[in-house]
Amino acid sequence: MARLVEVKRQVLSKNDRLASKLRRRFAKAGVTVFNLVSSPGSGKTALLEQTLRKLKERNYRVAALVGDLQTENDAQRLRRSGAQVKQINTCGLCHLEAQMVEDQLQDWTLEELDFLFIENVGNLVCPSAFDLGENLRVVLLSVTEGEDKPLKYPPVFISAGLVVITKVDLSEPCKFDEALVLKNLEAVHPGVPVLSTSAHSGEGMDSWLDFLESSRS
Amino acid sequence: MARLVEVKRQVLSKNDRLASKLRRRFAKAGVTVFNLVSSPGSGKTALLEQTLRKLKERNYRVAALVGDLQTENDAQRLRRSGAQVKQINTCGLCHLEAQMVEDQLQDWTLEELDFLFIENVGNLVCPSAFDLGENLRVVLLSVTEGEDKPLKYPPVFISAGLVVITKVDLSEPCKFDEALVLKNLEAVHPGVPVLSTSAHSGEGMDSWLDFLESSRS
Repeated sequence: MARLVEVKRQVLSKNDRLASKLRRRFAKAGVTVFNLVSSPGSGKTALLEQTLRKLKERNYRVAALVGDLQTENDAQRLRRSGAQVKQINTCGLCHLEAQMVEDQLQDWTLEELDFLFIENVGNLVCPSAFDLGENLRVVLLSVTEGEDKPLKYPPVFISAGLVVITKVDLSEPCKFDEALVLKNLEAVHPGVPVLSTSAHSGEGMDSWLDFLESSRS
Repeated sequence: MARLVEVKRQVLSKNDRLASKLRRRFAKAGVTVFNLVSSPGSGKTALLEQTLRKLKERNYRVAALVGDLQTENDAQRLRRSGAQVKQINTCGLCHLEAQMVEDQLQDWTLEELDFLFIENVGNLVCPSAFDLGENLRVVLLSVTEGEDKPLKYPPVFISAGLVVITKVDLSEPCKFDEALVLKNLEAVHPGVPVLSTSAHSGEGMDSWLDFLESSRS
């Protein structure tokens, strides 16, 4: 066990160094980078599909990297927005690492982008330890998952720069208690900003887009 | 990276040996063991709460081990059923391992149990590689998560002895396409049995309980 901990420490430390290098590279190129993390099925791809489309309408140059254990489905779906999209197939690995991001950037000119979104593997645990060089980590929590999730999975919520509550069009059938989620978020990460959205109904999308725009300045 | 793979291989191999030992011990004691795996918020605890209660009504002796990164909340909730319940706090680890299960069994007399349920950490990736000595691995998939999950997270669905579709009371607002999920499950794990349940409305609970009973014989 001690050996595993030591090897993991080395992997994380190597990842952190590469992430710092990526962060400097992104800043120099003037591209703002978001790392989207959540459980499987929290609506990362649905939010991202609308986001890419709407940012293009606002004349931003956008791209996305999409991590999955397998399949090209999400990349295909996101390409319908007209944005540049690449799939990162992790071959079973439970999270993205900075090296996987760097590998995908080789034939992209970052200077030609305003926003880059990285959709992590659906996992509320493991991605929290891996910095990808992003400007901001966005943790999604859907109203279907239960209000206790911040208390049960604190590391990822502590690492969040923004929490986006998703699928709010389902709040009523799910009897979602927003005040309780906000209280639980405040308990594990005091002051973390929170937005509520539905990619389906469009609710909250303008606030999310405004947040993204303001993060450029 | 090669070192990490080698250390992981050793960890898995050690886990497999201990799981085999546990499986023999469970069989000798006459206790039937289920390992419940799913994304965070798929309804493992809700299903388990009802299951423990109903099995007690049918005069079975039941117990549960509940894995979480943090908090005792789930164990407290499950104890309301009157069953013996212990919380395994993984201190941030993303899955349960056979050693954690064995550690918890020290002061329980397995011969006095008919059913033992192990609720894994909410994670659709990492628990798939760790055998806990269970008789059957039950993978839950809620109707809120999207029909594509079997294709995107194949290892855990391949490892399933049974798939339970949960929260079917939300099928309509989620526009859940059951035929599509069944098709996707069949693509990754042909012939895997599937049940549909709602711990909230009670739908499908009798079939699930009958399945559990029949697995004892």
